[in-house]
Amino acid sequence: MTEYTAPLRDMHFLLHDMGGLAQVREMPGFEEADGDLVEAILEEASRFASNVLSPLNQSGDTEKASWNATGVKMPKGWPEAHQLFSQGGWASLSAPAEFGGQQLPQLVGALVEEIWNGANLAYTLFPMLIRCTQQVIALHGTDQQKAMFLPHLVSGKWGGTMALTEPHAGSDVGAIRTKAVRQPDGTYRLSGQKIFITYGDHDLTENIVHLVLARVVGAPEGVKGISLFIVPKILPNEDGSLGLRNDVHCISTEHKLGIHASPTCVMAFGENEGAVGYLVGEENQGIQNMFLMMNAARFAVGLEAIGISERAFQRAREYANERIQGTEIGSNSEERVPIIKHPEIRRQLMAMKTRIEAMRALSCTIAISMDIAASHGDPKIRNYHQQMVELLTPISKGWFTENAVDITSQGIQIHGGVGYIEETGAAQYYRDSRILPIYEGTTGIQANDLVWRKVLRDSGSSIKRLTDEMREVQLALEAQTNQNLVSISWSLNDSIENLLSATDFILEISPYNQKRVAATATSFLELFGLVCGGWQMARSALVASKKPKENKHDTFYTGKINSARFYADHYLSKTAHLSKLITSGSMAVLEGEDLFK
Amino acid sequence: MTEYTAPLRDMHFLLHDMGGLAQVREMPGFEEADGDLVEAILEEASRFASNVLSPLNQSGDTEKASWNATGVKMPKGWPEAHQLFSQGGWASLSAPAEFGGQQLPQLVGALVEEIWNGANLAYTLFPMLIRCTQQVIALHGTDQQKAMFLPHLVSGKWGGTMALTEPHAGSDVGAIRTKAVRQPDGTYRLSGQKIFITYGDHDLTENIVHLVLARVVGAPEGVKGISLFIVPKILPNEDGSLGLRNDVHCISTEHKLGIHASPTCVMAFGENEGAVGYLVGEENQGIQNMFLMMNAARFAVGLEAIGISERAFQRAREYANERIQGTEIGSNSEERVPIIKHPEIRRQLMAMKTRIEAMRALSCTIAISMDIAASHGDPKIRNYHQQMVELLTPISKGWFTENAVDITSQGIQIHGGVGYIEETGAAQYYRDSRILPIYEGTTGIQANDLVWRKVLRDSGSSIKRLTDEMREVQLALEAQTNQNLVSISWSLNDSIENLLSATDFILEISPYNQKRVAATATSFLELFGLVCGGWQMARSALVASKKPKENKHDTFYTGKINSARFYADHYLSKTAHLSKLITSGSMAVLEGEDLFK
Repeated sequence: MTEYTAPLRDMHFLLHDMGGLAQVREMPGFEEADGDLVEAILEEASRFASNVLSPLNQSGDTEKASWNATGVKMPKGWPEAHQLFSQGGWASLSAPAEFGGQQLPQLVGALVEEIWNGANLAYTLFPMLIRCTQQVIALHGTDQQKAMFLPHLVSGKWGGTMALTEPHAGSDVGAIRTKAVRQPDGTYRLSGQKIFITYGDHDLTENIVHLVLARVVGAPEGVKGISLFIVPKILPNEDGSLGLRNDVHCISTEHKLGIHASPTCVMAFGENEGAVGYLVGEENQGIQNMFLMMNAARFAVGLEAIGISERAFQRAREYANERIQGTEIGSNSEERVPIIKHPEIRRQLMAMKTRIEAMRALSCTIAISMDIAASHGDPKIRNYHQQMVELLTPISKGWFTENAVDITSQGIQIHGGVGYIEETGAAQYYRDSRILPIYEGTTGIQANDLVWRKVLRDSGSSIKRLTDEMREVQLALEAQTNQNLVSISWSLNDSIENLLSATDFILEISPYNQKRVAATATSFLELFGLVCGGWQMARSALVASKKPKENKHDTFYTGKINSARFYADHYLSKTAHLSKLITSGSMAVLEGEDLFK
Repeated sequence: MTEYTAPLRDMHFLLHDMGGLAQVREMPGFEEADGDLVEAILEEASRFASNVLSPLNQSGDTEKASWNATGVKMPKGWPEAHQLFSQGGWASLSAPAEFGGQQLPQLVGALVEEIWNGANLAYTLFPMLIRCTQQVIALHGTDQQKAMFLPHLVSGKWGGTMALTEPHAGSDVGAIRTKAVRQPDGTYRLSGQKIFITYGDHDLTENIVHLVLARVVGAPEGVKGISLFIVPKILPNEDGSLGLRNDVHCISTEHKLGIHASPTCVMAFGENEGAVGYLVGEENQGIQNMFLMMNAARFAVGLEAIGISERAFQRAREYANERIQGTEIGSNSEERVPIIKHPEIRRQLMAMKTRIEAMRALSCTIAISMDIAASHGDPKIRNYHQQMVELLTPISKGWFTENAVDITSQGIQIHGGVGYIEETGAAQYYRDSRILPIYEGTTGIQANDLVWRKVLRDSGSSIKRLTDEMREVQLALEAQTNQNLVSISWSLNDSIENLLSATDFILEISPYNQKRVAATATSFLELFGLVCGGWQMARSALVASKKPKENKHDTFYTGKINSARFYADHYLSKTAHLSKLITSGSMAVLEGEDLFK
């Protein structure tokens, strides 16, 4: 028994049947990513995930990353696994070829990253951070910085971090106090404390590249005075060899609910002579430069949500097939049956499965837009897809992660009492997933980002254009003869209407009642997420309905239609409630100023 | 700062303003439970909770109950705390006076038990089990058994357990294999293994009274061949002194997600000469006799859900008042404000607060019915209230506990990253609460109990009589001039209609499609729970609206109306979705037989 098997069949469906790969292969630079190559990559990733990463998941949780004054020690087997990962070229999958990367589409990168997350979430944070660090330096670094850092990041030889948070500056990045002092040689000396730094220290790589937000002495207050620095753990010499130890140290790690093997570090910069830092981009432009990394990371957290959900689903499905308990309802037989025969267990498995399918399809749609936005020849099309990426990133971060918490909870529930026992594993997924709606910006932060920056700022034009795309799918479904498809199309139609009325409502009230908009933002995010998921399920059902009839051993395509029907019945039907809540239910949130004193 | 403060103001509201105490004081035997006495008890309980039990909550989680071959050792301070608890007479609050109990109404007992659960859930399981053991022996035991065991249980000197589950017999109690052999002296010798036995061993008391389900050799198969036995850890002599060690041993404990200080034991009965057991009631009547205990325990788990939710709410509210982050929306000031000023945080706190209030009010209503069912002079009235207790017990167990998981999750979310750190405490409540929808019968089991035994068996007459009661409140609200109250009455009206259509639907289809009923049972439970909560919130708002206007330092009553409004907007509005799901959305659950192979 393997603990985790990559869901290659569904990925195949998204790449090929749904036409995702063909779409990105039209972009310049991706011509070579043909079906055979991509299938080979996914199969190799699947093997690596099942054989190397997944077996370290539970032992990592139990053993944990451990701190002492010399640094953080990773659990047994982890350094070797990272070495294999790097040697396999996995850290460079979507990195540009000029720095040694394989320059594969984000679409492929996203599916592979989901596989790593399903195999071992606590580990996968590490290559995710390396990738984000690569991207920031590739986009904003000087040629010298690129030459010095990128090859080592692309090869996976060096680690990366995002060092933003300080005790008094979490969601409020503008409150950062870490200080940077300009030196005559053009470098800076940084001093200050950062907290919640994921993989801030470890023994997986010989060096770690911290991307640090700090305030140059004399800079303006708030977000406009924040600059971005590269602060290596060990300073590289001109020739690329490792030089002096920099003045940056992990002074403790947190005891967390989950992702125990991922060290969450308190980092002290410049406790002695000051930590040497290299400015990235211009002074005081740090927030803009970091935003790229934050957005990439937010999309990546969505992939974490899918991966951990899939793992929880596979374990629950296996248990439901094996566990014998009770007799079949409506049958006179006294024979005990596997619990999968009980409708309540099937309902829970369907609730897990269908949301995972919806999220995976949506994440592919976002990744495709990333690829088009990066490489299409027509700037109008690039721009449209960039807007779609920005509009949908809060859904990936906000809605996917809330789903993951619920899905991993259902994974426990299907196990009954056994699910509460740590050895079973289901409890770990529940603990691990609980960070997802928090880090890289809580769901509330995503919801406000969505409403203010992505919907209201362009007066709803992006979201309305997206609903036009949805409407095309809906009309195509409505024209089918299969009653299930027609029924799904009606649900999708109602849901789009519900989303549009909620959108119109917040557009109307936002000029004069910002608090009321803020009070409904999370409901709006959920509503939008549900509709986006329904759109993807409807697309999948439409594609599946055109496939030849299967035999009884393979019901993948009819299963897709059934999934879409379940999703419509159970999730799209929530949109009426949410739309009503947004348009009329927010007053009681704001009344009673002293209620919580 | 105390970590937990008993919510005495809300309890006072329920006892006095809502008339709960007056109602139970009309019952024979409860005349002495006047307002002063009850207030004194609650205040004393509040002090004991804050000063003795609550400080052991986090240390108990960290230190955990530990097992070795001689038995289970409880965390530091726990034996002393239990001694103080017993000396305070808390183990005997609602026990009959003839065995040394204080014979207080269940209404008072339930509020006090909520306080214990809020202070220390892992501990409170222990006195809860003692109380349930008392009740079974008081009702079904022989005079000799009562004399031998009850005084020690009532005094808290001996512990109690419910030993039902076996590895292959969880929800399916009929599959139990533990064997009992009749002895010439009228006792039995038991052998078999039981798992998941809460407080199966510990050093809190000198003796433990196990209530064990087993099968007498030659008994019929299934639930009809199960008998109930008292199996003491140490056999009492005729004179009541402790005699020989019985052949029952804890052979290991589980490593659980939460309630770490509560030992979950694997118990071996009769590994050597056989464990001596005393039959309770008749042979083969074990299930019926145990049902009482299970129902009492199921109601008690609902109180656990309220207690842990209240604790999570208090911590989140405190953090939200203290944590400074960001500026106030809609304000031009750059001043950083406590996060409670952010509408999203207020929304989450309201979501926690209002559901807790709804659950607490409903648990009081159930407790009042318990008191009336036990003591009213008119058998018709006793019978009506007994039916209400039975109808609402699955809501207490099923709906309250699902709420608790969600509420403790929101408690983490309000803390942001700090919530994921174990030292904060919020994560413990999340871990602890996750067992609640599982033990004593999962939510799915509760839902099926509700639908088949409580709704369909009497053709919906109990649930319809209950909606008549709800309708009275709804009509009284509708007649008010306050627009909030009228609006709540409309929501309640719609919700009652939604509940009734769902009820009619399952009544109609149950004769010919049992699977479809089973596929909707959990949605039905949620729907019914939401409506019951709305009924209680409506009652509270109506009562609060008749109170004199408050000053700005005390907005308790206007807060009640605001709570009811929030609940109606956010929760009653879900009932349309659920009703529709039940009446038309269950087919996709049942299709695709091979979907999960």
